[in-house]
Amino acid sequence: MDRRDFARLAAGGLTASLGLPSLRRIARDPVTVTGDRLLGHLRALAQYGSNSNGGVSRVAYSEADVQGRAYVSQLMREAGLEVQVDSVANIIGRRPGREDQLPPIMFGSHIDSVPDGGNYDGTVGSLAAIEAARTLRERNIRTRHPLEVVVFQNEEGGLVGSRALSGELLADHLTRVSSSGKTLRDGIVLLGGDPTALRKVERARGDVSGYLELHIEQGGVLEREQRHIGIVTGIVGIGWWDVTVTGFSNHAGTTPMDQRQDSLLAAARFIEAVNRIVTSVPGRQVGTVGRIEAKPGAPNVIAGEVRLSLELRDLDAAKTAMLFERIRREAETIGESSGTAFAFTPSFQSLPAPADEKVRGAISRASESLGLTTMEMPSGAGHDAQSVARFAPIGMLFIPSVGGISHSPKEFSRPEDVVRGANVLLNAVLTLDSA
Amino acid sequence: MDRRDFARLAAGGLTASLGLPSLRRIARDPVTVTGDRLLGHLRALAQYGSNSNGGVSRVAYSEADVQGRAYVSQLMREAGLEVQVDSVANIIGRRPGREDQLPPIMFGSHIDSVPDGGNYDGTVGSLAAIEAARTLRERNIRTRHPLEVVVFQNEEGGLVGSRALSGELLADHLTRVSSSGKTLRDGIVLLGGDPTALRKVERARGDVSGYLELHIEQGGVLEREQRHIGIVTGIVGIGWWDVTVTGFSNHAGTTPMDQRQDSLLAAARFIEAVNRIVTSVPGRQVGTVGRIEAKPGAPNVIAGEVRLSLELRDLDAAKTAMLFERIRREAETIGESSGTAFAFTPSFQSLPAPADEKVRGAISRASESLGLTTMEMPSGAGHDAQSVARFAPIGMLFIPSVGGISHSPKEFSRPEDVVRGANVLLNAVLTLDSA
Repeated sequence: MDRRDFARLAAGGLTASLGLPSLRRIARDPVTVTGDRLLGHLRALAQYGSNSNGGVSRVAYSEADVQGRAYVSQLMREAGLEVQVDSVANIIGRRPGREDQLPPIMFGSHIDSVPDGGNYDGTVGSLAAIEAARTLRERNIRTRHPLEVVVFQNEEGGLVGSRALSGELLADHLTRVSSSGKTLRDGIVLLGGDPTALRKVERARGDVSGYLELHIEQGGVLEREQRHIGIVTGIVGIGWWDVTVTGFSNHAGTTPMDQRQDSLLAAARFIEAVNRIVTSVPGRQVGTVGRIEAKPGAPNVIAGEVRLSLELRDLDAAKTAMLFERIRREAETIGESSGTAFAFTPSFQSLPAPADEKVRGAISRASESLGLTTMEMPSGAGHDAQSVARFAPIGMLFIPSVGGISHSPKEFSRPEDVVRGANVLLNAVLTLDSA
Repeated sequence: MDRRDFARLAAGGLTASLGLPSLRRIARDPVTVTGDRLLGHLRALAQYGSNSNGGVSRVAYSEADVQGRAYVSQLMREAGLEVQVDSVANIIGRRPGREDQLPPIMFGSHIDSVPDGGNYDGTVGSLAAIEAARTLRERNIRTRHPLEVVVFQNEEGGLVGSRALSGELLADHLTRVSSSGKTLRDGIVLLGGDPTALRKVERARGDVSGYLELHIEQGGVLEREQRHIGIVTGIVGIGWWDVTVTGFSNHAGTTPMDQRQDSLLAAARFIEAVNRIVTSVPGRQVGTVGRIEAKPGAPNVIAGEVRLSLELRDLDAAKTAMLFERIRREAETIGESSGTAFAFTPSFQSLPAPADEKVRGAISRASESLGLTTMEMPSGAGHDAQSVARFAPIGMLFIPSVGGISHSPKEFSRPEDVVRGANVLLNAVLTLDSA
């Protein structure tokens, strides 16, 4: 199925074509969203910040962001939610529960994009959450717990909105300049928040019953394995290092091969070693060198200094530390054999955020009730759920990304997968509510 | 000996300390230059464009270049030479021969520097040539051949002055911008040349009896091997390629290691392969990757495209071609195994310029007559001699570069080596003249 089938599929027949369960024993019949409406919302939101290449630039605090937020706020109101913008400018739509004093079940995502991004990252989860709430209202289903549909602000700029909830957004972060060119402080004001009152949005452990987030996978595993739904086992921790390789810059014509201290050759051996070491142990860990700069950078001069980035990600912080130690030792060996020296400076660190067993179970049972195939997988990308994990049980579900592409105008998830994801989200919320 | 001994050494006793031959059988007693005067000229020229780091920025067509040229023109006149600036703005000082209709023996070098360069590259050969001519005048030695002492303009910017003589400087090169920010055309005018009359300076085969150039080695071989003089077997040919490695840019967190098309990893394997292939066969060939750029160049994005430079140098063009073919095939293999593609675009090519047997012999005999140790070696760097080789027999001699450093404020050749080089140059000219 390709994009041309979008309208046809959305217009009807989804329930049949998705093969709802017949033989499985399930606790109760699953509820399903109105797929065509959700897909229509996705198309409508794509207009705010749309680029001629089919993608979108709706970076946080841009005019497109402001317009997109107005659009989803209106959708939230149409879904019967009480809409508020909190002090950090997250949009929160509340639906009371039968036992309204219970901590809410929260679900949502974000609608800001990277520059020249796509139309699925964040928006699928945000609009599916609103559609789920609307479906509950239409079906007159009142949950025990109050519900909070959340659209976090500026996810792509460093989980800004969700880190305010976890208390990780500090006052001195507010001077950081985001992709829009505005500081976080100015952005928060623009979106209707109050940067002087960030403490008000902080949540303590116990304040939220559970958090669910639907997202596109951003990788190609579900597509390759032909599964409908990825049940996220956790969000990986990330370590970044700035690596400097110091050699000796010299004339490339007159310096014999055996007398060189070539920092770019040493860096090349290092990049190969990172790949070799990271893939030498089983598991889903990843290691990347994505940035490199060689000085002086001329064809006829041996590079005297190379600076490069090292990134390691895994669910298990101990494994990341072990891999880094091996890489560091290998760099030392490369340095000794090439007359160069390696120096490592940590530049960013985020802790792994494991998904909660109960929330994972709710996603699993909801998928099963809908007759969808699943697989467990880590999230290699960062998400707002990882901030929420600091104070509440979290779970995430992924739908396939065609070709594994994201942060690109080519980012695409099939409409039937979007609807499947929304249905799982809705039923996972209900399962969690009744657990 | 270090720089503090410069003045003492230059002031006297050089002849004794350099161990002039006593037991060797030589054709005639060697003539020697006035070392302290030569070293004084080297110090004086270093003032034009001097930097606070001890080095010099005397790029062609700069004010410092204009001043330095005025200074050496004056030295030429003091040496009794008839000074002319030719159409391309080379400075040529002529001394008539006993048989003045013979093609001249030419010797010299250049005085322009790279930005933030040193005080020996080019200047040693230029000032030694003038000092040699002055010594001949003072000793009343009249050569058979007329002599031409030449200071070529803009060697560092691509052998501009000497390529005009060989007819390799084409009209459309004149719009190139040199390090000074001026075009070659404007530079030629500034220095007193006439860019509309470049054909006038072209020399045909037979127009010059032979060309000699003294230069610093710019490598560390003479120092390591403890030889006084390097007799250049030829100037290597140079090939440059722009190499593009195309992979697929993707999210570094969500793309498993086995599903990547990482162009930077492929580039790293390529850089390692260049080194391995170039060092896999005996000889003095060199291969260098000095420039690299990875796009998009972020720590958390797999590089989708890498551009890098490849340079190969050797005296034997067939060997360079063979090495390039092996490198190209290896790149293909790397591409196949990593889901990337390599493309090569030749960006520069210069032919090897072998030194003439007779001129090499003259340098060898002159060194022997002075009791100096020698070794044969290729010139890995380009020199004006390589342009001259297109129309005349050439030879070059090297003196040691301390630490093999050049194109740097740290570039240094010991004063006794500078004087030794000048003496060899002078006696090689006399040997060639009498051959």
